[in-house]
Parts: sequence; structure tokens; C-alpha cells
Amino acid sequence: MSTVPEVVIQRLPLYIRTLTRLQDRGVEVISSQELGAAQRMTPAQIRKDLSYFGRFGKQGRGYTVKYLLLELSRILGLDRQWNAAVIGVGRLGRAILGYPGFAPAGFKMIAAFDADPRQVGTRVGELMVQDMAELENVLSKNEIDIAIVSVPADHAQAVADKVVRGGVKAILNYTPFFLQVPSDVRVRSIDPVVALQSMTYYLRQGKTKAG
Amino acid sequence: MSTVPEVVIQRLPLYIRTLTRLQDRGVEVISSQELGAAQRMTPAQIRKDLSYFGRFGKQGRGYTVKYLLLELSRILGLDRQWNAAVIGVGRLGRAILGYPGFAPAGFKMIAAFDADPRQVGTRVGELMVQDMAELENVLSKNEIDIAIVSVPADHAQAVADKVVRGGVKAILNYTPFFLQVPSDVRVRSIDPVVALQSMTYYLRQGKTKAG
Repeated sequence: MSTVPEVVIQRLPLYIRTLTRLQDRGVEVISSQELGAAQRMTPAQIRKDLSYFGRFGKQGRGYTVKYLLLELSRILGLDRQWNAAVIGVGRLGRAILGYPGFAPAGFKMIAAFDADPRQVGTRVGELMVQDMAELENVLSKNEIDIAIVSVPADHAQAVADKVVRGGVKAILNYTPFFLQVPSDVRVRSIDPVVALQSMTYYLRQGKTKAG
Repeated sequence: MSTVPEVVIQRLPLYIRTLTRLQDRGVEVISSQELGAAQRMTPAQIRKDLSYFGRFGKQGRGYTVKYLLLELSRILGLDRQWNAAVIGVGRLGRAILGYPGFAPAGFKMIAAFDADPRQVGTRVGELMVQDMAELENVLSKNEIDIAIVSVPADHAQAVADKVVRGGVKAILNYTPFFLQVPSDVRVRSIDPVVALQSMTYYLRQGKTKAG
């Protein structure tokens, strides 16, 4: 399974989301046509994506929603808890720590760090903000799976370097800065500008049409 | 150009980001191989994506970074300012209003709304938080291009409905809720859980390897 293209892996969470929604609605079986329509993909692409992981559906019968959801969750490693640390607890970091979607999905925030002495020692929810100077010490205990970086952009790379030295292999980057990391470390960026820019194309066409 | 697949449009902002980075580094010409490597795509896919919009490169010569950046920006409608309203100014909404990446990219936050009377009338940066009851009235002035929704998940659909009725065609959804909108309205979701779930696959493999 190590040869699965990264784009396919990046799409799997969308399957999880779609299938969860279908299960909540009581749908038990779904065709690759319907699954495709829900994710704006072709049935052929759905079948190809899933074929990397084995045989999930029977020709002409569609996929069992519950089974496919369970299997894809297992493949993605979502059948366990992952521990994350939030680094930088300004307004954004605090919003992240307060985000209600992480815990139900199996992501637990177990530590928070900040370089600002006024933040250190304060509480955010159940966590006590720790001094950034403690970061490497805490990482050395190997309890942090994921680093969530929400420091100002000009500190982002330095923090990423520390995190990488500490052995963390997954970074969720909330800064607009492009992080340089070794190839065995994954970075995903939360970039609202990229999301907005993929809509302006259509806004512009609408405006043109309307005169 | 109305037949360009949405997945291609969704990739264009990544080109913008990559090309901006290259331009900042002083790179003047880039091959589809190099552009592909930077975006984890094949050169053939790069060429196919760009072919939807005309001829940007000469066979064997690569693309002129500055020209390609300018053209793609124009195609995406990034050569003008877009006005956005932030709806819901809790911790997350305030973090969004304070995000430094919007203004340089041409996105201007011109209004903020909240249903909580304790928030209404307070200032966030240069904006005065307005009462949610004023939303439809403000939208009717046609000055808002994009609605950024950062209300609690159980209010998300009701807010989206109001925004759609107000004629807004682009929604940036910060809630974990899947918004139902007419087909002429675009929604992009900022979902950190989806981003995390596309990394756990690799974390899990790493853990397995390490025993």
C-alpha cells in the first residue's frame, strides 16, 4: 500500500466525510455513480481510488456504506486517538484549541505552547500554556503525533525546525508561510486565501455575465 | 472557458502560490517538470491544466514565471479587490478578522456580524460588529462578494440560507457543517479535521514500521 499516490490519500478524508453523512441519513448501499456525484468525481475515478485498497464493492451492487466507512477509517488510521500540540496560542491558537470538531474525530490536544511570557502559565480550556523553551523537552517524550503551528509567520520555519528535530512527522500549518521540511514529514496548510482564490474565478464570471 | 473542470480551477491558487514563491526567489523561467515537482504533480498534468487557458509556454522553453503568474491571476479574478463579511465573531471569527494574509491577496473584510447582543457594537480592528438582524439589509446593498461563516455549527445552515437569499455567490465555511446551497453558489470549507486525516495514513505507516 506504500505506492498509493498522495493525491488519493488526500481524497480519502472526503470519502469519510461523504460516507459519514450518508450513514447519518440512513443510506446503506451506494453506487460509485452516487458517491461520485456527491464528491464531484467520475464513477471511474471513485472505482480507481478505492481499487488501491482492495475490493470493496461487488460489480453492479455498489458499496456497503458502513463497511466502506469502517475500512477507509482503518486505512487512514482513524481507529485510534492521535495527540496534537498547538504551538502559538494567540487569537488563532485559542480558536483552534476551542474547535469542537477535533475530539469527535479522534484528535486530542494534549499540549499548548507560546513564546510570550504573558501567555505562559495561563489556561486555555483544560490545558496550561507551556513556555516555548519547553517544546523540545516535551517532544522528546514522544507523546505528540501532530504539531499544529499557529505562530506569527516569521516564526513559522523556526518552530517547524524544532518540531522536526523533536521527531514529529505531521504538521498542520496555520501560517501563510510555506514550511520546508524533510521528505518524511507531512505538512498540510490551512490557507483561507487559497480557498477564496478558488471561488473568485466563478465570481468574476458571474459579474461578467451580469454586465 | 466555462468548461474548465472545477478541480482544475481549485488547483490554480496552488500555481499562484508556487509561482509567487518562485518570483520572490528571482526565478524567471520554469519548466513543467520543475513546476510539477513543486506541486507534486506530473509535468503532463501541469501542461494539461494550463492548456485550458491558452498557450503559456513554448515547447522546450518552459514558462515565464512573471507572465504566467499575471495571466493566472487575471483568470482567477485576482486583479481586483473582493469584499467579504465575517458572520460570527467569536474566538474564530476574531482570529479570521485578524488574519494578515487576506489584505495582501486582495480580500477586504468590510463587515462583521454576530447574533450575540454583547458582541454587537464592539469593535474588532477597524470594524464595528453589526447585529445579525442587519445582515439581509446590508447584503441588499450588493457590496459583499463573499460571506465567511464562523458561527456555531447549528446555526450554519440558517446563516447560509440568509446569505444565499441576499445574493452572495461565494461562502467560506469555517464550521464543520456541510452547507446545502443552490448550484450557482460556491462553498469552500476550512476543515482542519480533513487536513489532519490526510496525514494519519502516513503516521500510521510510520508507527507500523517502527513497530
